[in-house]
Amino acid sequence: MKKVYNFSAGPAVLPDSVLNQAAEAVVDYSGHGMSIMEMSHRSAPIVEMVAETRQLVCDALNVPDNYKILFLQGGASLQFSMIPMNILKDGEIADYTDTGAWSAKAIKEAQRYGNVNVVCSSKETIYNYIPKEFDQSDTQQYLHITSNNTIYGTQWTDFPKASGYLVADMSSDIFSRPVDINQFGVIYAGAQKNMGPAGVTLVIIREDLIGRAERHLPAMLDFAIHAEKDSMYNTPPVFAIYVVNRTLQWLKELGGVDTMHELNTLKAKLLYDEIERNPMFKSPVAEDDRSLMNVPFVFANGGDEQHFLNFCTERGLVTLKGHRSVGGFRASIYNAMSEEGIKALISAMQDYSQ
Amino acid sequence: MKKVYNFSAGPAVLPDSVLNQAAEAVVDYSGHGMSIMEMSHRSAPIVEMVAETRQLVCDALNVPDNYKILFLQGGASLQFSMIPMNILKDGEIADYTDTGAWSAKAIKEAQRYGNVNVVCSSKETIYNYIPKEFDQSDTQQYLHITSNNTIYGTQWTDFPKASGYLVADMSSDIFSRPVDINQFGVIYAGAQKNMGPAGVTLVIIREDLIGRAERHLPAMLDFAIHAEKDSMYNTPPVFAIYVVNRTLQWLKELGGVDTMHELNTLKAKLLYDEIERNPMFKSPVAEDDRSLMNVPFVFANGGDEQHFLNFCTERGLVTLKGHRSVGGFRASIYNAMSEEGIKALISAMQDYSQ
Repeated sequence: MKKVYNFSAGPAVLPDSVLNQAAEAVVDYSGHGMSIMEMSHRSAPIVEMVAETRQLVCDALNVPDNYKILFLQGGASLQFSMIPMNILKDGEIADYTDTGAWSAKAIKEAQRYGNVNVVCSSKETIYNYIPKEFDQSDTQQYLHITSNNTIYGTQWTDFPKASGYLVADMSSDIFSRPVDINQFGVIYAGAQKNMGPAGVTLVIIREDLIGRAERHLPAMLDFAIHAEKDSMYNTPPVFAIYVVNRTLQWLKELGGVDTMHELNTLKAKLLYDEIERNPMFKSPVAEDDRSLMNVPFVFANGGDEQHFLNFCTERGLVTLKGHRSVGGFRASIYNAMSEEGIKALISAMQDYSQ
Repeated sequence: MKKVYNFSAGPAVLPDSVLNQAAEAVVDYSGHGMSIMEMSHRSAPIVEMVAETRQLVCDALNVPDNYKILFLQGGASLQFSMIPMNILKDGEIADYTDTGAWSAKAIKEAQRYGNVNVVCSSKETIYNYIPKEFDQSDTQQYLHITSNNTIYGTQWTDFPKASGYLVADMSSDIFSRPVDINQFGVIYAGAQKNMGPAGVTLVIIREDLIGRAERHLPAMLDFAIHAEKDSMYNTPPVFAIYVVNRTLQWLKELGGVDTMHELNTLKAKLLYDEIERNPMFKSPVAEDDRSLMNVPFVFANGGDEQHFLNFCTERGLVTLKGHRSVGGFRASIYNAMSEEGIKALISAMQDYSQ
């Protein structure tokens, strides 16, 4: 096996040390003589592991006491429905920002539960910037944002101030930078970019919002039930939670989200600087809104995209193809992408352009 | 590490060869230079693996062409809601059999979508038998059964004939025996007993039932969307599906569900015979309805249960404690439990009783 640099947008690169620990646990979990996949979720070692993972989330993001941390299934896509159905009463207003394909899906799903007001959209320019001037509803319950737009490579560098509170899909930049949780009513994130494998979804929710809509919901869609049962109402995705645990332990040992943010800023700057410097490439994204996580770039004057992709693949730089709606290339440089990986990509860009 | 015999009710024992292959894939998937957890679900190797897993399900159970095979999230618990909300129109009747705690949960969730008729219940005798004489509604849409009751150790040896069609929660005995799929409108099963790790749910659904209720549903709860997108509407739990793939490959190499049923029958007989023979133990379950998967047993004349459990643990026979609602002991002897494991348990029972 030759290890590659994996620029996939998600599921995405994870730290090697996490993969090695996960592989061990798949065969024998901490000397229990069985795989972590074979252990009851009600057994003491698993209950402890899930509680420890909650604590690691809490520590990493300084989550205040009046929030619940849940590990659910169904990805951000299920949260698009669960959040409004649990929070929004019929006719109540929620403001949504439309900054990409995932925002648009969140809007579509929310529309069946309340009065959804789309306060801004950058769709006309293929979502290549984050709108910053927009009017919010005075009677807004919450303002929904997608903190980082994986496909288009834009990111809310500073969060808007909500007239109610923020609800954020942070699937593609959670744990990449510090955030002030107090601004948010709910933060949710699929694991498969910065946390772990596909199959577990983190939800951080302010306690007073749980059960707010007073709807009679299916048990599996009711935050109140998941919160009361500490994410163990039904069998949780134990192995996926364990990988999140190990990833957050790795993050902690590295210095936490402050250090990670410095590293991410440095990594992104190296790559964006090359895109600016190298006459062969350009960024399609407004300068102020460029993501530290997903870096789309295109040929400045056209060219054979597949040829460059093949050139990169030969060097072990893989999954750099851009999303079909943007074209060109995209380097996803999540927490676990090393500076060496970025430098190898920059070298390839330089060598290719000579 | 000392390998133990794991009699856990679920998550439960998996074949060693599956665990070893899974551990390899966690580090490097088939020489791609990255973990299976790091690979895009849209990449060719993963799309192929998921398609192959569908085919393995199809081959193992002889699934006819007019059924769709889906890999979803949320466990059987989410199916308790999804099935009636997708199939039952307002006011339509579904008959439900109440043969255990999971049946009761299925009934509770279905009640919000149609007219649920509980046709039988063995609750009064702590679910220690399967009722066989009951009246079904003439205008029934479907008859719901729990094919195997994990907690109480009962199993539908022969399935009832539905006046409509059967819908079955097969979480704890799928792939343990042949079934005639044509009797069923829907079969669903959480993976964590006979298929793989917690975090993926298999749904086999007759095509004409998809979208039948014509309800406007959240996308993630709509079978039509999952079927149209081949279980890739959102990021599926790739690793969990891979473990299912390897488990079904193991099953195939062993000879499929017919051979497995013979092995399971033999294993269960060994254990039940000992329970009958050994004056220290007895079965709380009606003889005709005893499960081939979960074998509860109790002291015939009382005794120190923890002492026997400790005696077993010292011999590497673990997670034998009975469910709190039945008491005593429970040996879950799913497909992956070896005959050696059963014999080791029988030896322990014999040695303890001397």
